[in-house]
Amino acid sequence: MCELMGMSANVPTDVCFSFSGLMQRGGATGPHRDGWGIAFYEGQAVREFRDPDPSFDSPIAQLIRSFPIKSCTVISHIRQANVGDICLENTHPFGRELWGRNWTFAHNGQLPGVETFLLGAYTPVGSTDSEYAFCWLLEQVRQQFPEPPENAEELWLLLKNCADQLLTLGVCNLLISDAEYLYAFCATKLHFITRRAPFGLANLQDTELSIDFGSETTPNDIVSVVATQPLTTDEQWRALRSGDFLVLKQGEEVSLLR
Amino acid sequence: MCELMGMSANVPTDVCFSFSGLMQRGGATGPHRDGWGIAFYEGQAVREFRDPDPSFDSPIAQLIRSFPIKSCTVISHIRQANVGDICLENTHPFGRELWGRNWTFAHNGQLPGVETFLLGAYTPVGSTDSEYAFCWLLEQVRQQFPEPPENAEELWLLLKNCADQLLTLGVCNLLISDAEYLYAFCATKLHFITRRAPFGLANLQDTELSIDFGSETTPNDIVSVVATQPLTTDEQWRALRSGDFLVLKQGEEVSLLR
Repeated sequence: MCELMGMSANVPTDVCFSFSGLMQRGGATGPHRDGWGIAFYEGQAVREFRDPDPSFDSPIAQLIRSFPIKSCTVISHIRQANVGDICLENTHPFGRELWGRNWTFAHNGQLPGVETFLLGAYTPVGSTDSEYAFCWLLEQVRQQFPEPPENAEELWLLLKNCADQLLTLGVCNLLISDAEYLYAFCATKLHFITRRAPFGLANLQDTELSIDFGSETTPNDIVSVVATQPLTTDEQWRALRSGDFLVLKQGEEVSLLR
Repeated sequence: MCELMGMSANVPTDVCFSFSGLMQRGGATGPHRDGWGIAFYEGQAVREFRDPDPSFDSPIAQLIRSFPIKSCTVISHIRQANVGDICLENTHPFGRELWGRNWTFAHNGQLPGVETFLLGAYTPVGSTDSEYAFCWLLEQVRQQFPEPPENAEELWLLLKNCADQLLTLGVCNLLISDAEYLYAFCATKLHFITRRAPFGLANLQDTELSIDFGSETTPNDIVSVVATQPLTTDEQWRALRSGDFLVLKQGEEVSLLR
């Protein structure tokens, strides 16, 4: 099973992979040996780091470990390949531009038959069902909304509708972002939590992923984290149900479509 | 003046910024204080590193210095801003997908009035004339060739024609790639050289940019480099003329349209 992790915050916040943890699970014995990727938004721009190599011997992972990037919106993915070769083209998250916005997409699950869905302006570069599903989904948005809809809720309904259609094919836990919003769609397993200052001593921490709030947090900071599994054991993470579509903006839950 | 540098090779080759050089020219006193970026193709995928900060204090630059990536096709750009704020969105090279291929674009010059050119499926994320020109150019390709043309030369003629149209607006030295080909269009200043094994002791080297052929080159290696200025003083670089459109593939010049 792949691992998804997303973050939405109202102030730029560090997200650091704990590479000692990745070395355990992304190594020769762990299940996530088929690459990983992370996308950090910085304003409307996005920085992407991807590596098809197991994280335990990835020089890119070593790079990021030494360089925590602050971001308000982050999507990350650790891959266990089931469809598509192990190569950089097939490594999540995937990115495309629509409306002058950088869209990012990461998927956990399998979508057999997705290649029967009709594509349009977007064509996969690699050979995964995931990238294909992303190209299809973004085309649906483009066709229905050549310009961004004035009422954002119309877009959310469309995105949920598309995710529901993908769900008929198989498993699709999804994280999607356009820089401003972080969307999470649950097929089988996704959890989230919203944390507010003061964050106290109980920093979010796990052997695999961590959020470092550092000492620079302010009383106004709000940070939501979505992850396949809860990343802490001493906090109340909310489990999303199958079909749930969560909308986060600036760290806050703004909608949960069921 | 911005600096462009591109590389095409028939085997994956290291390209390293010489960051001691960048520190001189990208620093507080140098002209290229407004960011830099580099795109490395790896198969059909592309790794991009960009930074709006001056290179002399860029942590991303430090990252890359310690991690030389081997690639057959590279495009890099050092920016001196004249249109558009200094931010990550406005930092070259720019990327978009067409035909399931990752296209990359870097521009040196100014194109006043380019915003009167009609866009289509691609919309700029940032505010540079360069990204606008890229979105326009790629739309022309998409409209004329919804699928890749069987005769590649038809595509080259269209790309040159688009570049010629941009040239009527101002200055556009361009580097463009779709992973397989590296295209270079000269408005005012571009030089190139094709080097073959044995490379001997005269490795390409400069205070600003370098190609490290290392000790792993083979007799079959072919590497072409395109740069704003020749990167060596003891070799015969060929100067492109205004309007020249150079097509490189696997390190070889395959066409020069005038």
